[in-house]
Amino acid sequence: MHTAADHATAAAAVAANPATAATPLATLQDGQAMHALARRLWPIPRSITGDGVRATLAVLRETCMPGLQVHEIPSGTAVFDWNIPREWRVREAYILTPDGQRICDHAVNNLHLLGYSVPVRTTLSRAALDAHLHSLPDQPDAIPFVTSYYKERWGFCLRHDQREALPDGDYQVVIDTELFDGSLSYGELLIPGETTQEVLLSTYVCHPSMANNELSGPVVTSFLAAWLAALPRRRYSYRIVFLPETIGSIAYLSRHMESLRRNVVAGYIVNCIGDDRAYSFLPSRRGDTLSDTVARHVLQATDPAYKSYSWLLRGSDERQYCAPGVDLPIASIMRSKYAEYPEYHTSLDDLERVVTPAGLAGGLRVFQRTLMAIERQCRPRVTVLCEPQLGKRGLYPTLSGRGPGQAAQLYLDVLSYADGGHTLIEIAELCGVPVWELYPLVDRLAEHGLLAL
Amino acid sequence: MHTAADHATAAAAVAANPATAATPLATLQDGQAMHALARRLWPIPRSITGDGVRATLAVLRETCMPGLQVHEIPSGTAVFDWNIPREWRVREAYILTPDGQRICDHAVNNLHLLGYSVPVRTTLSRAALDAHLHSLPDQPDAIPFVTSYYKERWGFCLRHDQREALPDGDYQVVIDTELFDGSLSYGELLIPGETTQEVLLSTYVCHPSMANNELSGPVVTSFLAAWLAALPRRRYSYRIVFLPETIGSIAYLSRHMESLRRNVVAGYIVNCIGDDRAYSFLPSRRGDTLSDTVARHVLQATDPAYKSYSWLLRGSDERQYCAPGVDLPIASIMRSKYAEYPEYHTSLDDLERVVTPAGLAGGLRVFQRTLMAIERQCRPRVTVLCEPQLGKRGLYPTLSGRGPGQAAQLYLDVLSYADGGHTLIEIAELCGVPVWELYPLVDRLAEHGLLAL
Amino acid sequence: MHTAADHATAAAAVAANPATAATPLATLQDGQAMHALARRLWPIPRSITGDGVRATLAVLRETCMPGLQVHEIPSGTAVFDWNIPREWRVREAYILTPDGQRICDHAVNNLHLLGYSVPVRTTLSRAALDAHLHSLPDQPDAIPFVTSYYKERWGFCLRHDQREALPDGDYQVVIDTELFDGSLSYGELLIPGETTQEVLLSTYVCHPSMANNELSGPVVTSFLAAWLAALPRRRYSYRIVFLPETIGSIAYLSRHMESLRRNVVAGYIVNCIGDDRAYSFLPSRRGDTLSDTVARHVLQATDPAYKSYSWLLRGSDERQYCAPGVDLPIASIMRSKYAEYPEYHTSLDDLERVVTPAGLAGGLRVFQRTLMAIERQCRPRVTVLCEPQLGKRGLYPTLSGRGPGQAAQLYLDVLSYADGGHTLIEIAELCGVPVWELYPLVDRLAEHGLLAL
Repeated sequence: MHTAADHATAAAAVAANPATAATPLATLQDGQAMHALARRLWPIPRSITGDGVRATLAVLRETCMPGLQVHEIPSGTAVFDWNIPREWRVREAYILTPDGQRICDHAVNNLHLLGYSVPVRTTLSRAALDAHLHSLPDQPDAIPFVTSYYKERWGFCLRHDQREALPDGDYQVVIDTELFDGSLSYGELLIPGETTQEVLLSTYVCHPSMANNELSGPVVTSFLAAWLAALPRRRYSYRIVFLPETIGSIAYLSRHMESLRRNVVAGYIVNCIGDDRAYSFLPSRRGDTLSDTVARHVLQATDPAYKSYSWLLRGSDERQYCAPGVDLPIASIMRSKYAEYPEYHTSLDDLERVVTPAGLAGGLRVFQRTLMAIERQCRPRVTVLCEPQLGKRGLYPTLSGRGPGQAAQLYLDVLSYADGGHTLIEIAELCGVPVWELYPLVDRLAEHGLLAL
Repeated sequence: MHTAADHATAAAAVAANPATAATPLATLQDGQAMHALARRLWPIPRSITGDGVRATLAVLRETCMPGLQVHEIPSGTAVFDWNIPREWRVREAYILTPDGQRICDHAVNNLHLLGYSVPVRTTLSRAALDAHLHSLPDQPDAIPFVTSYYKERWGFCLRHDQREALPDGDYQVVIDTELFDGSLSYGELLIPGETTQEVLLSTYVCHPSMANNELSGPVVTSFLAAWLAALPRRRYSYRIVFLPETIGSIAYLSRHMESLRRNVVAGYIVNCIGDDRAYSFLPSRRGDTLSDTVARHVLQATDPAYKSYSWLLRGSDERQYCAPGVDLPIASIMRSKYAEYPEYHTSLDDLERVVTPAGLAGGLRVFQRTLMAIERQCRPRVTVLCEPQLGKRGLYPTLSGRGPGQAAQLYLDVLSYADGGHTLIEIAELCGVPVWELYPLVDRLAEHGLLAL
Repeated sequence: MHTAADHATAAAAVAANPATAATPLATLQDGQAMHALARRLWPIPRSITGDGVRATLAVLRETCMPGLQVHEIPSGTAVFDWNIPREWRVREAYILTPDGQRICDHAVNNLHLLGYSVPVRTTLSRAALDAHLHSLPDQPDAIPFVTSYYKERWGFCLRHDQREALPDGDYQVVIDTELFDGSLSYGELLIPGETTQEVLLSTYVCHPSMANNELSGPVVTSFLAAWLAALPRRRYSYRIVFLPETIGSIAYLSRHMESLRRNVVAGYIVNCIGDDRAYSFLPSRRGDTLSDTVARHVLQATDPAYKSYSWLLRGSDERQYCAPGVDLPIASIMRSKYAEYPEYHTSLDDLERVVTPAGLAGGLRVFQRTLMAIERQCRPRVTVLCEPQLGKRGLYPTLSGRGPGQAAQLYLDVLSYADGGHTLIEIAELCGVPVWELYPLVDRLAEHGLLAL
């Protein structure tokens, strides 16, 4: 007989087979390359519209995805219950203190300017200025990220300790921005596969200088796209989008609803995927799609302590992809989830203390394992009645004492569940092993004509 | 992002909306009025037949339900496997002790006479008398409630301490009762609604001078009927019956089986609903009807420590309503359940120590919430694809920092589940709030054209 | 009202009814008879083929089953992915030590010879001999059971302490065996019932001198067969097979697949059923067949601490019976499971320390209860609407105080679930009693015309 430990040993034995090395997973070196890309993107001033988004997409296309297409949707276009907002452009923004010091300078840190601030030039007292300042009393050394996309206002964000130290006197406010009829930009990459069924990967490029949320998503997605494009074969086609959050996914759905609902079999939001502190999962609205099943399996095998969040704690584009009537099978795989780490949506979410090469590499690996499991999903069926005789095929020890031995038992367990009904992931879970440890085993049984995949 | 506590706060905020005050719930004042009615009914000597039942129904009709109809079924009538028993009338009953003292006087406490005692006039020794006495050794100060509806016998019930103190000697027994071919009485009130689908409320009027079991049921049911009749609108029709337990419900089912099975969508036994010690639930036989779902939700929100009993611990008319082949969706909502409190079926179950105004008011409130939830049951469906833009409707904060705020999040959560499949109660449970806290929210979303109810 | 304890008391009360004594269960005396039969079979040298199997089947037929048929399948016959191996015959086998002592003598203990050893006569050094010796370092006083059915080799098994004490020098090896084109033998007994639906009982006769695994299976199965044949009536027909493990069940399935899949409604592997240390259960592959449900119920009532094993820990002919495409409803009821007791597959698994008369009797009783529950399976339906009036049939106390009393409550509970949907075992589980305690109760209700079985 055998134990769970036996299974692990057996699985490790088969995993060593060179055949499983076909699709290499992300290494720390890949993590360092992603981290370098994130550093390059860091200072670009992104918002839900504007040249910052276009510059970001250009860098991603140049570094990873030559096939990335950039699309524009004019301001005012109706997209379901919304309209594309006006485009926002920033030339400069700062405050001059009474003693002539320049603070809250957008050029120094683009979080200083409240997102979508309307233009203003004025002088205010300290008291009048205060109504336009935003800081976090509980995190005095952090600049918060604050926006007002849909209501005209202006403001600055700064460290609370700096705010408290501001003296009385007259402050000069300079916000040289523009809101105009332009367009919203997004990037789309289509990687064809053997079928027209699709896997959707969605990330966002609307956050300015913050790391986990959200430079980790675009850089991991870009490297994932490059890896997918380099695979020798793909069963599924891949649709990869780089959007501004919410308005971008609503706009994309308004353009592609029918084909997405027809073709998408699985998919994920890629965000908050760069720290090394945790793995997290947010389900689709229904919670029982292929995306949910595969992600849970991979995360459980990667880190049994991964955090699983309720749908009630969502906050990204799954709100659109899983809305009633849309109902795409989209879940989220993350490292530390947005709103669940202290640096979230502040200047402290940076590329030193939060996002690391190891974190990014781990995030990319989880996605590679997940997409490979979706690619390899099947319902294997044994081709003989009763157990096959593994011994004559060199798959079973011929000296029987107290049981068949660990490796042989895993073959027998897989064969016993291979009834054409169980999926490969279900078989892996029944056998207590990660699904990737079954790939060489099922390939070998298929070579012997014992399994129809 | 938001927490469960945030939901509670959000729900409280929307509950303050004057629109939700449309259907006021029972107050302590109502409890006092019910208690007074119970005191008025207390001394009437009820049994499964007889003038005591008729007098009780007359009081209920006069005080609460002018439309209450009283029906009579002749003794001997076959009702399924049973027959209506003979009617029982009591003129007087007592025992004279050897020293001429009158004890066990039915006029002093109608529990003294064993229910359905046959007439007898005789003199007995202490020893011979003892075979006809009933007391509770474990509760020496209580007079037990004992009956013999279907086998002719006679007897007296008394306090055990009194029984033990009875001296030797000759005892004169006087039981001036009559068993004759009369009829069984029951009350029925029909309150029409917009549809012919019905909610059934059933209580019983066959217990003599005991409070929780069973004066609380008839008084709460009467006040509930008056409240229902006063509602500005009712989707459902209400069928409210005041029966003798078991034989009454069997008789009622034998008369109305086909229309009940066709029309009744939910219903409850109303009994043991007057104390302030607990809330309790007894399921329907199948346990998964609308009545079960709604009651469990309301009780959980009222008192998370409510006691949930197994079908095996039933003891009232659900035994008939849920019998195989009858299968009506009837459950029981109670305060302290029969047989689960020490005063049950004794003289100690009274209007001082067990049934109180606060207890009756709480019981009535739970039923009001339950029936309102049934009235408001729907499967709301959002009318747009993707999230609607709440901000332009004044339903969403326009300054976004770390999340939409508590009230707005509840709107988004309700909208995300409003797929035309989830019922309103299911949405409430998914969102972790009592369903009544969603009424003003869904009404407001419907006013904005965002929800189809 | 009533408690679980009340149910137990009620059930015991009805169990005393002489009607339930119709089918007596195994006693210790039966256990002693089975133990004697096992002693008689003990020394016969069994393997997956050969005269030892034939001799064993002959003893079983003579003692318990005159209708037992012995079948032969020629060596080389293709049976699904396997072929019937050559037949193995042993004349003698031993080793002569350097000082002329005869050790590892097959005539002394047939475990000494590695199963299916090819013939050899040779002289070897101690070192060269060692490659052909098998012992258990962790159990130095045990001779292990080792076989090599499908690869030609030879070897001896011995106690590890004896092996370590063997001196250097020349050893003479004598293995006078023969592998020839003969046949595989198995026994089959068919006991007809009122229907052609079948219950399959399968055990094996291929293990040499070991007790729990596997003489307990054949002896309990034989006594079970005799008990079945003596029943006054049987709804099901019984198909009882005595096979060599694995190759025997594969061969049997290759001959009877279509009729087995059509007729078999339930069945069990009978093995490891003779010790008194535990009760164990191994499910069918799907885990939800009638065999699973009934076995779990009986085991739970017999020993709530029974061990329930995962399908992953199987090791017997359920591997064939439950293979995909075969999918017979076969589970295993055992005492201590193979590989889960220290003496397993060694000379220590004997008729003193492991298998006892009490153990065998308990094993037989569990199977009797299980098969009787399958025989009595029904979906009872109450024949009246609402509760029947039990009092007029003498089934209900007529003096009602605080509830109907324990025995009457069990009648009411069974009637309340008798909706033509619940099986009798489901009703027993809902009522919290072993199903056999309901047999006299349902018979009595059926006699009164209140239940249709």
